[in-house]
Amino acid sequence: MQESRKKKCIVRFEPSGLRAEVQSGTILLEAAHKAGIYLSSICGGDGYCGKCKVIIDEGQFQSRPTTLLTPDETQQGVVLACQTKVLSDMTVTVPKSHALKPAQILMDMDAHRFSELTGELPQGVFEFDPLVRKICVDMSPPTVQDHTADHERLYLAIRKQIDAPIMQTGYRIMQNLPKVFQEANYNVAVTIGQRGGTTEVIEVEPGCRSVTNFAVAVDLGTTTVVAHLINLTNSKTMDTEATYNSQINFGEDYIRRIIYAEENNAFEEMQNRLVQDVNNLIVTLAERQRIDLQDITAVICAGNTVMVHFLLNLDPTRIRREPYVASAGWVPPIRAAEVGIQINKRGLLYCLPSVAAYVGSDIVAGVLTTRIYTKKDLSIFVDIGTNGEVVLGNRDWLACASSSAGPAFEGSGVKHGMRAGAGAIERLNILDDGSIEYKTIAETHPVGICGSGLLDTLAELFRNGLIDRTGRFITNEDARFTEGDDGLQFQLIPPANEHHEIVITQADIDNLIRSKAGVFAAIRVLMESTQTKTDDLDAIYLAGGFGNFLNVRQAVTIGMLPDVPAEKIHFVGNTSIAGAKTVLLSRAALETAEKIAQSMTYFDLMSHPKYMDEFMKAKFMPHTDLSLFPSVVVTVNKALNSKS
Amino acid sequence: MQESRKKKCIVRFEPSGLRAEVQSGTILLEAAHKAGIYLSSICGGDGYCGKCKVIIDEGQFQSRPTTLLTPDETQQGVVLACQTKVLSDMTVTVPKSHALKPAQILMDMDAHRFSELTGELPQGVFEFDPLVRKICVDMSPPTVQDHTADHERLYLAIRKQIDAPIMQTGYRIMQNLPKVFQEANYNVAVTIGQRGGTTEVIEVEPGCRSVTNFAVAVDLGTTTVVAHLINLTNSKTMDTEATYNSQINFGEDYIRRIIYAEENNAFEEMQNRLVQDVNNLIVTLAERQRIDLQDITAVICAGNTVMVHFLLNLDPTRIRREPYVASAGWVPPIRAAEVGIQINKRGLLYCLPSVAAYVGSDIVAGVLTTRIYTKKDLSIFVDIGTNGEVVLGNRDWLACASSSAGPAFEGSGVKHGMRAGAGAIERLNILDDGSIEYKTIAETHPVGICGSGLLDTLAELFRNGLIDRTGRFITNEDARFTEGDDGLQFQLIPPANEHHEIVITQADIDNLIRSKAGVFAAIRVLMESTQTKTDDLDAIYLAGGFGNFLNVRQAVTIGMLPDVPAEKIHFVGNTSIAGAKTVLLSRAALETAEKIAQSMTYFDLMSHPKYMDEFMKAKFMPHTDLSLFPSVVVTVNKALNSKS
Repeated sequence: MQESRKKKCIVRFEPSGLRAEVQSGTILLEAAHKAGIYLSSICGGDGYCGKCKVIIDEGQFQSRPTTLLTPDETQQGVVLACQTKVLSDMTVTVPKSHALKPAQILMDMDAHRFSELTGELPQGVFEFDPLVRKICVDMSPPTVQDHTADHERLYLAIRKQIDAPIMQTGYRIMQNLPKVFQEANYNVAVTIGQRGGTTEVIEVEPGCRSVTNFAVAVDLGTTTVVAHLINLTNSKTMDTEATYNSQINFGEDYIRRIIYAEENNAFEEMQNRLVQDVNNLIVTLAERQRIDLQDITAVICAGNTVMVHFLLNLDPTRIRREPYVASAGWVPPIRAAEVGIQINKRGLLYCLPSVAAYVGSDIVAGVLTTRIYTKKDLSIFVDIGTNGEVVLGNRDWLACASSSAGPAFEGSGVKHGMRAGAGAIERLNILDDGSIEYKTIAETHPVGICGSGLLDTLAELFRNGLIDRTGRFITNEDARFTEGDDGLQFQLIPPANEHHEIVITQADIDNLIRSKAGVFAAIRVLMESTQTKTDDLDAIYLAGGFGNFLNVRQAVTIGMLPDVPAEKIHFVGNTSIAGAKTVLLSRAALETAEKIAQSMTYFDLMSHPKYMDEFMKAKFMPHTDLSLFPSVVVTVNKALNSKS
Repeated sequence: MQESRKKKCIVRFEPSGLRAEVQSGTILLEAAHKAGIYLSSICGGDGYCGKCKVIIDEGQFQSRPTTLLTPDETQQGVVLACQTKVLSDMTVTVPKSHALKPAQILMDMDAHRFSELTGELPQGVFEFDPLVRKICVDMSPPTVQDHTADHERLYLAIRKQIDAPIMQTGYRIMQNLPKVFQEANYNVAVTIGQRGGTTEVIEVEPGCRSVTNFAVAVDLGTTTVVAHLINLTNSKTMDTEATYNSQINFGEDYIRRIIYAEENNAFEEMQNRLVQDVNNLIVTLAERQRIDLQDITAVICAGNTVMVHFLLNLDPTRIRREPYVASAGWVPPIRAAEVGIQINKRGLLYCLPSVAAYVGSDIVAGVLTTRIYTKKDLSIFVDIGTNGEVVLGNRDWLACASSSAGPAFEGSGVKHGMRAGAGAIERLNILDDGSIEYKTIAETHPVGICGSGLLDTLAELFRNGLIDRTGRFITNEDARFTEGDDGLQFQLIPPANEHHEIVITQADIDNLIRSKAGVFAAIRVLMESTQTKTDDLDAIYLAGGFGNFLNVRQAVTIGMLPDVPAEKIHFVGNTSIAGAKTVLLSRAALETAEKIAQSMTYFDLMSHPKYMDEFMKAKFMPHTDLSLFPSVVVTVNKALNSKS
């Protein structure tokens, strides 16, 4: 029993006066949540975003050192709530600007960069035929010879412009038609949306000088939520934005979040947070592009099955228990307002269909984007997020599986890991003389390491003999090996005036290896189950929020992808949002996505007899069976020889 | 200037204390409405339903004599509000039971009798495939081998039972699925409804021992609203009910009601009244059949275009102004709750499609029911309500027109006219000795005369030389001619202990002739426009709320229908509700009704150069041109000869 340290402490937050009773030792950020105060915390409480600054007015606490506070701030009692433990009753002031509000989320660069990768509607594949359109309808007013009723007049006029065999109009819209028609002398702007096989008249507005119509595509990641703003009149992506998923405080992976929600009956809170994240992104995009939220008529989401369940507050609890059942894989279009998404009040929310509890609509979007479902030869699609999903197949069949890779390559659970934002190391290279060359996003001073940088780091440490095949540091005489707060670590970048030291720890490496091993084991199970040889593979598509550029070769070096020639490996970026955009811009693509979701065969790795065995083998660098990685053996030998 | 009689009077109603300021001479019923008190007045203020009894506590008034009050009541100051003029400031007590409340509407018999005529789903024409179904869905719970999500599991199971290529589920229903499924171990009752081309899952309830599912079909007449309760599990009509349209106080015909609504901005009140009428009918049917309103999952309406506009509060004002445009002819299914109809809260309201502003969905229902759209030979369909609509055509083409016949054959605007309820004279025959033989509905003592009785009366007066060819009374020595309150009248039935005298007035006859002339003129315009000869007609279908039995021959005698052999004329009763029921019970019938509505060519009689001329010619008995009615000439001559 550790007596006094386990005592109860009352933490009072000013200026709201809200209070929480917590145990001594509780992290201040958690105490704030308990009191009902949601501090901005985009790094998920990892201490590197500096967003959760509060001022301690009174009381005892213990804070971890940070480079994110100036000496002046420290002097004034400013701390990072996520790095501070409560040790007594306290009074804490929350600066006004730091409580979470829409559009206060830190912007970062990667979304902007990703838009280049994800591209527009693939040319010649799907016709431009968006799920929601706004069209100018200029009708002749009725005459004695033509006394067609207003409602039918509208339908006839719409059908002259678009293919809409079955139409519907909401009661209130229909009721308002005569007024709008007369006010505008039958010249109106009509917003129409696809709902199942029906075309719905969503809004009818008088006049039609300039048509403005926008949509937002969202990738609902476990760690990251990304949104793209699309101009529906010309299919162009106007702007992009991303944020950490603010559910992250309730668990790094979605299984932990389900458990948290179950234990705390917090399903609504889970929904609220995710909806708030989406709303924040939408508001930020709309403000930046100076468009009215009313002109955003659709939101389309892709994401893993659990995130879609959280967004819609569908029961996700059975996803974590045998037989692992989702509440809905296919979700019909609903009004965005029904879940609290703040766009046009009659605007629609579309969710791409998912395959199974562990293979979500993000993967369907990836298959759609990479078009592996159309190819004669076999391809692999791998999406590295908090989970690592793998699809293997061609135009005749598609098999898929999901491994719980963990969010290491998203920068989470890695000491200096971070999302692909400004200051993230996205390329890293250890030169023959042992010195380290790196490049950061936006070319600012280094803040941390994003996915592609972590991949490089792991590969380069291995190639240069700084870790062994099990991932253990080989602590030769190199002075960059030191003992840190988290055990043995290797200094990648020494501290400087502008930035802190950047290191990688033994725990980081273990996390990264577990991630890559999960992915490779999933690939092996699918290949073995379908008797696919490495030589049979025509292409490997690697998706995920790694960064802007990814040295795909390194993914083979660490043994995450099969050893195929580099030209067969394509880094495709965020295919989740790319697929969502394709569907948004083409009805035919939505139908294709639904067919893909239905046709994929799911392999459950939890119950698969060979998965654990494959996983254990893949926890080596690159693998226990070196015959699977002949090119890596050559590379590593070459590197080691050049040193000796 | 009629000085003192035009003075202002304050009428105070007890126990509510509500007051109205009215001009001296105002009818008390109107004063009550002005004060916001809606007295039951199912005869429309004609003084024969006896429902608007009130007690005059204080003040001067003038009441017309009535047989509906006992001497005791008169002693106590009881009057019929509709027969009483306000002459001074007054205090009036409204008996609690007489203020209009749901289910207090007088039931009458005709609906029960009509149900025999309207029949069930025509055998061999349309398959039983109702717009809303409740089906038992017994699914296997998920297993590791079968982990299909709940939502898709439901769709797959539904599709095993019914054809539903495109399905949708409301967000709240979808959200609730997992709970219901687990509670009921995947054995549920599912209510599904057709919405456009989509099948909507309306409700999912745990367990499925016995399925109860009901709908109500409604004929929205200008004068009468009729409702049938249908068991959707076996297509049987369980019960029927009818009421006067309570908008009647705002105008006998719908044009006057539109004007009233425009002048008083009373569109919402118009909607509320009609919705209240429908709700009253539904509640009465549900209570009598002891079913739960929650088990009524659909309401289907047919009616003239204006009534449908009033029900939905769609702007009807342009219907009365050139170019006579409706707000909507085709109305998509909406939730009944959206207009205030009280059935299952997610239950659907369907409205049959209409053709034009003056040819409503009741006529489409009539064409569907009589099946003239399938026949090689030409037929005429005539529907006599407050308006008289005519359709002429065959399987190749359909032409239609509407004449403002007036509600005389519905018993309105005729001194002793009444709806086809208990005590209504439905058959009347003047014997060779001049004595009158009659039959009342329900064989009770006579209360008034319904449509079929009025048709008989007019024909028999003419056949027996009691009116001339212009409709004037031929006041021979017959003592039954007397001068009444409304001028010259003919006593059809002398007063007796149990009942008052029943007469027909010169004004009544003029009204009836105007009605029949309007209908015949419409028929002539359509026939001449399409070069149709009387001999080309294979059948005439006569629809309307005349009564149970109708001597169709008499419709020729008075010159309302062309002179075709009696066997070619078919009285088909209320085809509006019959058609609505057919559509309710078969999706294919709904599609057919939509095609009929689209394919009919509308002739606007108001602007037609020949209509007024035809109308003037038809205001004779049977017509100015006797060559059009050879059989009538023979009949009348025979009758007159037998007397001389």
